[in-house]
Amino acid sequence: MSLKRKKISVVGAGFTGATTAFLLAQKELGDVVLVDIPQAEDPTKGKALDMLESGPVLGFDANITGTSDYADTKDSDLVIITAGIARKPGMSRDDLVQTNQKVMKSVTAEVVKNSPNCTIIVLTNPVDAMTYTVFKESGFPKHRVIGQSGVLDSARFRTFIAQELNLSVKDITGFVLGGHGDDMVPLVRYSYAGGIPLEKLIPKDRLEEIVERTRKGGGEIVALLGNGSAYYAPAASLVEMAEAILKDQRRVLPAIAYLEGEYGFEGIYLGVPTILGAGGIEEIIELELTEDEQAALQKSADSVRNVMKVLA
Amino acid sequence: MSLKRKKISVVGAGFTGATTAFLLAQKELGDVVLVDIPQAEDPTKGKALDMLESGPVLGFDANITGTSDYADTKDSDLVIITAGIARKPGMSRDDLVQTNQKVMKSVTAEVVKNSPNCTIIVLTNPVDAMTYTVFKESGFPKHRVIGQSGVLDSARFRTFIAQELNLSVKDITGFVLGGHGDDMVPLVRYSYAGGIPLEKLIPKDRLEEIVERTRKGGGEIVALLGNGSAYYAPAASLVEMAEAILKDQRRVLPAIAYLEGEYGFEGIYLGVPTILGAGGIEEIIELELTEDEQAALQKSADSVRNVMKVLA
Amino acid sequence: MSLKRKKISVVGAGFTGATTAFLLAQKELGDVVLVDIPQAEDPTKGKALDMLESGPVLGFDANITGTSDYADTKDSDLVIITAGIARKPGMSRDDLVQTNQKVMKSVTAEVVKNSPNCTIIVLTNPVDAMTYTVFKESGFPKHRVIGQSGVLDSARFRTFIAQELNLSVKDITGFVLGGHGDDMVPLVRYSYAGGIPLEKLIPKDRLEEIVERTRKGGGEIVALLGNGSAYYAPAASLVEMAEAILKDQRRVLPAIAYLEGEYGFEGIYLGVPTILGAGGIEEIIELELTEDEQAALQKSADSVRNVMKVLA
Amino acid sequence: MSLKRKKISVVGAGFTGATTAFLLAQKELGDVVLVDIPQAEDPTKGKALDMLESGPVLGFDANITGTSDYADTKDSDLVIITAGIARKPGMSRDDLVQTNQKVMKSVTAEVVKNSPNCTIIVLTNPVDAMTYTVFKESGFPKHRVIGQSGVLDSARFRTFIAQELNLSVKDITGFVLGGHGDDMVPLVRYSYAGGIPLEKLIPKDRLEEIVERTRKGGGEIVALLGNGSAYYAPAASLVEMAEAILKDQRRVLPAIAYLEGEYGFEGIYLGVPTILGAGGIEEIIELELTEDEQAALQKSADSVRNVMKVLA
Repeated sequence: MSLKRKKISVVGAGFTGATTAFLLAQKELGDVVLVDIPQAEDPTKGKALDMLESGPVLGFDANITGTSDYADTKDSDLVIITAGIARKPGMSRDDLVQTNQKVMKSVTAEVVKNSPNCTIIVLTNPVDAMTYTVFKESGFPKHRVIGQSGVLDSARFRTFIAQELNLSVKDITGFVLGGHGDDMVPLVRYSYAGGIPLEKLIPKDRLEEIVERTRKGGGEIVALLGNGSAYYAPAASLVEMAEAILKDQRRVLPAIAYLEGEYGFEGIYLGVPTILGAGGIEEIIELELTEDEQAALQKSADSVRNVMKVLA
Repeated sequence: MSLKRKKISVVGAGFTGATTAFLLAQKELGDVVLVDIPQAEDPTKGKALDMLESGPVLGFDANITGTSDYADTKDSDLVIITAGIARKPGMSRDDLVQTNQKVMKSVTAEVVKNSPNCTIIVLTNPVDAMTYTVFKESGFPKHRVIGQSGVLDSARFRTFIAQELNLSVKDITGFVLGGHGDDMVPLVRYSYAGGIPLEKLIPKDRLEEIVERTRKGGGEIVALLGNGSAYYAPAASLVEMAEAILKDQRRVLPAIAYLEGEYGFEGIYLGVPTILGAGGIEEIIELELTEDEQAALQKSADSVRNVMKVLA
Repeated sequence: MSLKRKKISVVGAGFTGATTAFLLAQKELGDVVLVDIPQAEDPTKGKALDMLESGPVLGFDANITGTSDYADTKDSDLVIITAGIARKPGMSRDDLVQTNQKVMKSVTAEVVKNSPNCTIIVLTNPVDAMTYTVFKESGFPKHRVIGQSGVLDSARFRTFIAQELNLSVKDITGFVLGGHGDDMVPLVRYSYAGGIPLEKLIPKDRLEEIVERTRKGGGEIVALLGNGSAYYAPAASLVEMAEAILKDQRRVLPAIAYLEGEYGFEGIYLGVPTILGAGGIEEIIELELTEDEQAALQKSADSVRNVMKVLA
Repeated sequence: MSLKRKKISVVGAGFTGATTAFLLAQKELGDVVLVDIPQAEDPTKGKALDMLESGPVLGFDANITGTSDYADTKDSDLVIITAGIARKPGMSRDDLVQTNQKVMKSVTAEVVKNSPNCTIIVLTNPVDAMTYTVFKESGFPKHRVIGQSGVLDSARFRTFIAQELNLSVKDITGFVLGGHGDDMVPLVRYSYAGGIPLEKLIPKDRLEEIVERTRKGGGEIVALLGNGSAYYAPAASLVEMAEAILKDQRRVLPAIAYLEGEYGFEGIYLGVPTILGAGGIEEIIELELTEDEQAALQKSADSVRNVMKVLA
C-alpha cells in the first residue's frame, strides 16, 4: 500500500551511521534499519534500541532496528553506506582503497539482492572511488548511486563564514566542486551572505584562509578529537541528501555524480552541482568555469583517477 | 538585553553530554557550552565544532563551544551535569559514590561561582544522592536543583508499550515514581494508550514483564553495547526537562525533587511528579498511593538513604 | 515511482479548507489541491497562490494549487471534504441536511471517479450523517471513509483543562465518544493531566462546567465571531488525522467510524476511539462503558439516526 | 525572571494579524496578544480562542488572547502593527495616507505607554510612510522601529523562480531593495538558485517578466480573491522578522529602515538589506549599486517622499 512508511537502511553502525539513523528517525523520514557486521550485531541493536527509546520524548514515530542480517533491509527505498575503515597511521593509501573496495563489493551485493529498486548514497572514503565501485558492482543506473562530499564541505565553509561575519548560518550559502578535502574546488564567487557575494564582505586574504580551513576541515576535527573523526556534520549532510530524495524536493545540492561528458569528464564520479529528487540525481548542472576553476577541477579529477587505478 | 539568547552549559562531554548539547542546539533552545576537564579539552572542542558544522544543514542557529574553563559558562541560565564516572567491574558502590561526590562538589563550586542564578539538572549516578550533593554544595533553593530519572524510565516504558500494542508512541503515557532502575515504582494504573488504562489492554503478566524490562532498561543497553551505556534516550530526557524550564512550559514531568514532607519523606531527593517551568520545580504533585505503592516508594527512599550514608 | 510526493485534495476552500491546506503544506505532508465550485475558482486560486508564496519563508516544499476542476485532484492519496453550507438563521435542520447531502453526493462522485483508491475524511455537518452519505455514495470500504469530530472536541476540552490547571497542553489528554456538540460523550475518567485522572485534580462541579463548555465549544466561537464559525482548531484536527494516515502512525484518535456491532450499534457512523494508520481506520477500540456512558452513547446514536431519516 | 515567556502583541486582528498570531504561537516564539478596536473585541477573542484550541493538536504551548484593551499588551517584547484600512475603490491615496496615519498615531501612543522597551514591526500601507510615522510618534531609537516589505517581495520572487525552474524553494534566494510593489528594486544579480545567478539559468526576457509579476504580486492576489488581499505570505514574512529578533539570529533580511546617509538618503524609511537580531536592526548593509540600480532606488525614495508630504 502506497502509504506505508518509507524504509531506509544505513550500512555501518559506527558514529556516523548511528547519528545518521538518529537524524532520519527524528525527522520521521521513514523506518530505519541499522546494519553492521555480525560481530557488531549486539552493539548495533543496543544503539538502535537506545535511539528508539528517545522517540516518546522527542516525539517521533519511526521504527529503528539493529541487525547484521541484510534480509532485514529488504525493500529499502534508500540505502546509505557508511561502512568501511578509516585510514590508520602507517596504512598506505592503496591498502585503504583496497580494503574499502572489498567492503563496498560485499555490501553492494547484499544491498542489490535485497533492495533492487533502491537509491544508494555512499559516504565511505575515498568517496569518489568507492561510489564508483558501488555503481559498477550494483549495475544500477547512474542516477541511483550517489556520493556525499560537497554538502559537508559547504556546511563547514558556511559555518566558518557565519562565524567570521557573526551572521545566521541560515543566510550563508557556499558552493563547492570536485573532490573531498584537499581536492575541493570552492567556487567562492558563487558563495554568499544574504545574497551578497562573500568577496564583497571579506578581504581576499582572509577568505583564502577560510577556504583553506574548509579544505582541511575533516583533519581539524580529527586533530582535536585525537581519536576518531567527525560524525555530526557528515551525518547531517547525508540526511539532507536523503530528505531531498525521500521527499522529492528537487534540491540543488552538490553531490558525487557519474559524469559522461559533463565538465569534460567521462566515466568517473566527481563532485558537481546536481538536482536531487525522487529520481536520485535528476540532473547535473553544468556551469561555465573560469580557467583556474577548470584547472582545479581537472586536478581533482586526476586525483580521483589515481585512486581508481588502485581498484581491483 | 532580554532578547539575548539563553545560555546552557553541559558539564561532561561524554556521549550523553555531547548528545544533550546537540539536541539543545537542534531545538534552538540557546547557545551551548560543553565543559569537560582540561585533559579532555581538545576532544570537547572537536565535538562542539563538529556539531556546529551541522548547523547550516540542519538549519539551526546556536553557538556551541567546547571548553575546560568554567569562565566560559558565565551567566548560564541552565546547567546540566552529566560528569562523573560509571561503575566499573570490580568497583564497589561506595567507591562510585565517593568518586562522583567529589566530582559533584568541584563542578558545583564552579557552576555556582559563574552562574549564581542558574537552574541545575543532574544526571550523574547514583542520581538521587548526587542531586542531593549538588543541592547542599550549591546553597541554591531546592526548586533550582533537579535530578533526572523518571522521564527516561517512562520513555523506555512507553517504547515497550508502543511496541507491544503496535501503536504510535505519541499516544502512550507512562508514570513512574521513586528511584532509578531497580527502585523504580511504576504506577501502571496511571499509564495509558490513547487514554485507555494499560491494564485494560495488556494482560497483567505481560504488563509485569514490561515493567520488569523497564526497571532493567539501562542494563539491557549496557549488555548489548558491551562497552558503554545508553546515551540517546538519557540525553533526550534531559532536553525535555530543559525545554520545559527554558520555555516556561509548566510540563507535568517526573523529576528527582527535594522532599520536605511530601509523600511522608523529609530531607531527601526522590523521584516524584512535578511541574517544571521557568522557576524549575514549580510544584510537587502529591498523589494518594495504594499501600503497595507507598511501600515500594519507602523501599526506594531507603535505598537512597543507604547511598546517602556513604556521602562524605 | 514510490518516492513521488503524496497528494492531498481539500474540497471546499472556505476558511477551514484553506487553513487545512496551509497546515498540510507547512508539515510537508504532500502536494495539496484546493477545490471549490466554479464561481469560487478565482478566490481559491488566490488563496492557494498566497499560501504558496509563504513557502520560501516558512521553509516548506509543497505545491498548492486552487481549482474547480476535479481532474486536478486525480490520484489523490487522501481527500478531505469541508464543503457544504453552515446552518443559517431561519433554516430548518432538515434543509441543512438535504442541502449538504446533495453537496456530498456530487463531491463524492467526483472524488471516486478521480481517486478510486483514496481515503476520505469528512468534516461537513451534520458530520455523522454526511460521512454516512459519502460512505454509501462512494462504495468505498468502511475503513477508508472517516468523519472528524472527536479530535476537535477533545482539543477544546484539553485547552480548557490546561487553562484551569495552568499546565502545558502537551500533558493533558481528553477522551470523547459519540456525536459532535451536544451529543458528545466525554469520558472524563479517561482524561488526564500528566497521567493523573482529572477527577483527582478538579472538583466535580467545576469539571462538569468544563465538559459543558466543551459541548458548546463550537457555539462559543460562533457567538464571539458574530459572523462565521471556528476554523483554526477544526483544520488542525483534520490535519492530525491526515498525518496519522499519511505517515502510517497508528495513532489512537477518536473518529467517526462505521459501526457493525461495535458498542451495540449497527449500520451507523458514530464517534468512537480508533487506530488511524495507512489503512485508514485500522481498528475500532471497544471499551467497557458504564451504564451512564452507554446511555449517553445511545442518545447520541439516536440523534444520528434522527438526522439520517432526513437523508434522501 | 529571565526565563519567562516572551510576549508579542499583534495590533489589528484582520486576516493578516490573525495569521501572524497563529504562526507566532505555532513556533512557540512567545505568548501572543491580539489587539483590535473595541467594536472588534469579540471577534478578536473568538479568533484567539479558536487558535488556542488548536494548540493541543498542533503541539504548541503559547497563550493567545484577544482584547481591545492595550493594558493587556503591557511589557511586550515585540509589537507588530497590521492595523489600518486598505485602499478602497474611489478613495484617493491621500485619504488612505491620512486615515492610516491617524491609526498609527493612536496605536503608537498606546504601544509606547504600555511597552516602552519593545521593538516595533510595521506592515500597514503605505508602509514606508507609516513606519516613519510610528518612528516619529514613538520617540524610539531607529533600530527599534522597522517596516516589512522586502521579505514578502522576495518570497514572491523566490516562489515564481522555483516554479519556473521546478526546484525547491529552499534553494532559491532573492534580493530586493526600495519600496513595496511598483517601486520595488529587485537586484537580480544578487538572486540565485542553488548559488547560481539566475541570469545564467533563465533568459533575460523571461526573468524580466518574473520581476514584473513580483512587482505586481500583491495586486495579483487581490484580483484573484475579488474581495480582500493577501495574508498568508505577509504574515509569514512578519513572523520571519519577528523570529530573527526574538531569537537573536542576526539574519540578513531586507527591511524598511531609517536612513541617515546610507545609500545617499537622509531622514526617510526605505527598504534596504539589514541585519536583524535582538537589537532590532543591528546593521544596515550598504552595497555598491550600478547606476541603474541607484536610479531605481532614487525613484523609490522619491515615491516615499511624495507620500510623506501628505503626512499631517
